[in-house]
Amino acid sequence: MKKFFASIGLFVAFASFSSSLSHGQEASKVQIFDSNITVDQVLKAQTGWCNALLKISSTYASGGINAAKPLAAQVINSAYAYQYGPVAFKPTLASGAQTFRPTKEGALAYFVGNDPNYPSDKGFALKDWRSCSAVNQVIQINGPSATTMGDVFFTDSKGVVTKVDKTWNFVRENDGSIRIMLHHSSLPFGG
Amino acid sequence: MKKFFASIGLFVAFASFSSSLSHGQEASKVQIFDSNITVDQVLKAQTGWCNALLKISSTYASGGINAAKPLAAQVINSAYAYQYGPVAFKPTLASGAQTFRPTKEGALAYFVGNDPNYPSDKGFALKDWRSCSAVNQVIQINGPSATTMGDVFFTDSKGVVTKVDKTWNFVRENDGSIRIMLHHSSLPFGG
Amino acid sequence: MKKFFASIGLFVAFASFSSSLSHGQEASKVQIFDSNITVDQVLKAQTGWCNALLKISSTYASGGINAAKPLAAQVINSAYAYQYGPVAFKPTLASGAQTFRPTKEGALAYFVGNDPNYPSDKGFALKDWRSCSAVNQVIQINGPSATTMGDVFFTDSKGVVTKVDKTWNFVRENDGSIRIMLHHSSLPFGG
Amino acid sequence: MKKFFASIGLFVAFASFSSSLSHGQEASKVQIFDSNITVDQVLKAQTGWCNALLKISSTYASGGINAAKPLAAQVINSAYAYQYGPVAFKPTLASGAQTFRPTKEGALAYFVGNDPNYPSDKGFALKDWRSCSAVNQVIQINGPSATTMGDVFFTDSKGVVTKVDKTWNFVRENDGSIRIMLHHSSLPFGG
Repeated sequence: MKKFFASIGLFVAFASFSSSLSHGQEASKVQIFDSNITVDQVLKAQTGWCNALLKISSTYASGGINAAKPLAAQVINSAYAYQYGPVAFKPTLASGAQTFRPTKEGALAYFVGNDPNYPSDKGFALKDWRSCSAVNQVIQINGPSATTMGDVFFTDSKGVVTKVDKTWNFVRENDGSIRIMLHHSSLPFGG
Repeated sequence: MKKFFASIGLFVAFASFSSSLSHGQEASKVQIFDSNITVDQVLKAQTGWCNALLKISSTYASGGINAAKPLAAQVINSAYAYQYGPVAFKPTLASGAQTFRPTKEGALAYFVGNDPNYPSDKGFALKDWRSCSAVNQVIQINGPSATTMGDVFFTDSKGVVTKVDKTWNFVRENDGSIRIMLHHSSLPFGG
Repeated sequence: MKKFFASIGLFVAFASFSSSLSHGQEASKVQIFDSNITVDQVLKAQTGWCNALLKISSTYASGGINAAKPLAAQVINSAYAYQYGPVAFKPTLASGAQTFRPTKEGALAYFVGNDPNYPSDKGFALKDWRSCSAVNQVIQINGPSATTMGDVFFTDSKGVVTKVDKTWNFVRENDGSIRIMLHHSSLPFGG
Repeated sequence: MKKFFASIGLFVAFASFSSSLSHGQEASKVQIFDSNITVDQVLKAQTGWCNALLKISSTYASGGINAAKPLAAQVINSAYAYQYGPVAFKPTLASGAQTFRPTKEGALAYFVGNDPNYPSDKGFALKDWRSCSAVNQVIQINGPSATTMGDVFFTDSKGVVTKVDKTWNFVRENDGSIRIMLHHSSLPFGG
C-alpha cells in the first residue's frame, strides 16, 4: 500500500522546473497515486500461482480429493477473474469441445478433475508436483494490466520436468489484488 | 473516425437527469471522445490478419520469395507492435531456443523462412493456404486493448484443415490503427 | 452485470468472416467480457452525486449536523476513491492553503464544515439545495475511466441558481462501482 | 525509448523464484515493454507547456500576431489531442457560451485571440509572460494516462504573479508523444 501514498519531496518532483517556490504552503509535497501493476507484482503473482499449485498437490496427497477440491476452488476464486466475467483460459492438456474454460467450473475441473461434466480431466494439480517455476521471455506492462510470455517448468516427485509455453494476462485491482484474465498454456511444438 | 466525434443530442445524454435545461446555449450537444477498441474492430483485425496471410501465400505462389518477403515485412510492420517494444509472440510451429519471437526479425523468419538465423523456419505463410477463419470463444475488451481466445482454421489447396488454438491481444492507437501485442498459437493437445 | 456476460450469436460475431463454420461444437457462442465504463454509467454517477448532495442537504435540515456528517462520510467513502490513494479534488469554494483536498478529511470538511482544521469551510452540502443537474460539454471514455467537463447547476430553496464549471474523472472497478478520482470545480470567470 | 527495450537480468527478474534455472538458453533475459507514462514524463510535459507559452509570448513581442499565431497552432497540434477527438478544455479566462473549448479553433483563439468568432478572447499567450511554473498537489498515474492537479504561476514583465488552479490529463501514445486530453484552469476562489 506504500506505493499508493508515496509523497515525494519537492526537490525530486521539481527537478525539471527552473522556478523557485515560495507560492503557498500547500506545496510542501505532491501526493502520488499510482494504480499500475509493477514487474515485481507480476513476478509475485506467478510465484503465487506456482505455490498454489504445489499446495493443491500436497493437500491431495495428504487429504485426498475432499481436501484438495475446496482448496482449488478457493485458489481459483482469488487468483482468477471469473467473478467478473469469462476468463480466457486454455489449459495445457485440454482439447476437443472442452479446450477452453471460460467458466469457474471448467477451471476447477481442469485442476482437480472428478467432475462428470469434464470426463477427460484427470486433475492437473493432483499430480505429485514438487516444484514449479516460471522463466519469462516477455513482460508487457499496460497500466493495471500485464502480459507475461515464457515457459513454466513443473517437476514431479521422480524428478521429471514438464515444460509448457505459457501466456498470462494479469490485472491489478484498486484494492491491490492481482487476478488472471488470460491463461494460454501449451506443450512445446514437437515436444 | 466517426466514432471519435459522435455528438449525441441532449435528449439522449440527459435521459437520466430530471432537471429542465435552460442554462446556456453552449449545452446544445455533448461531444463524445471514445478511445476504446470495439468488438467489431477486433473482428476486423482478425479478418485482416487472415487475409494478409492468404495474400503472402498467393504472392509467394506467383512471385516467389523475393515478392513474398517484403510483403510479409510490411504486414508485420503494420499489424504488430514491434516498433514500440517486444511483442509476445509464440508461433504455432516454433520450438526450442527459438520458441518465442519478441523481435520483428523472428516474426518475419517464422512467416516466410529463408533466414539462416532461424534454420528451423520453413515459412508458415508460404504454404498454399486458401482460407483462414477465426472462431472466438472469449473476447475481453479493456479500453484500447482486447484479448481474443479461440481457434483459427487454415485450409490448404488440398482441402486439408489445420486447427490451432490462438490467443491475441490487440491494442488500438489514437490514430485508429490496431496492433498485435500478444500472439500465442498452439496445436491442439493430442491433436 | 448483464454487460459482463453478454453472449452474442455467431451470426453477429462472425458477420465479417467469410468462412462457414463447422469446426467444433464449442463455437456455439462467444463470451464477451467488457470492463469499460459506459456513457450511461457516467451519467448515472453524475446523477448519483447530485442526489447525494441533495440528501445531505435535506438530512441536515431535518436532523442537524449530527445526522448530516455521517451521511456525508458514507457518501465520500462510496463515491470517491480516497481509500485507494489521493483524490485530485479542487472544490468550488476552497482557497488558499486548503484549495486542494487530497484526503477524505478535507473532502468531508468541505461538504459539511464543522471541522476546526478547516476553519474556512462552511459546508457546501449544508446549504438548502433543492435541485442539482449536470450539463456536459465533453465526455471522454478511456477504458474503465471517463472524463466529463461541463456545468453543474445548483438551485436553492429561494430559486437562486449557482452555476459551476466542473470536471470529473470517474473510474469503474471490476465489481461495477464507479468512483471519482478527479473533481475540479470552479465558479465561472467573471461570474 | 530506452524504457521500451529494457532488458533485465535473470537475477533481478527471478529474485522471487526459488528454483534454479537450467532450462533453455532462450531464458538469458526477459524483454520488458512498458507503455505507461511516468511522473518524470508528466513533469516534462508541464515544463514543455510552460515553455511553449513563453515562446508564443516572446514571438508575439518580436514578430507580432503573424508570427505568434502559426506557432500557437503548431503548439496546440503537438501538445493537445484535438486531432483524435474533443479535448476537455476550460481555459482560465473563458466564460459564458464560450467557456469550453472542445475544438482546436477554440483553443487557438484563447491563446492568441484575433478571431472574430471568439470576440472576448484577448490572447492569453500574448501577454508579456516571463516565467511559468507548476506546483503539483496530486499526480495520478493510470497506465498511459496521468492526472495532475495543482497551481501554475505566471509572472509577467513587471513581476506580477498570476496564480491559477489547474488540472491536466495527459496521455502517452505508443510513439512516446504526450498529449493533453483535459485542461481545467480557474482563478483561485475569492482571489
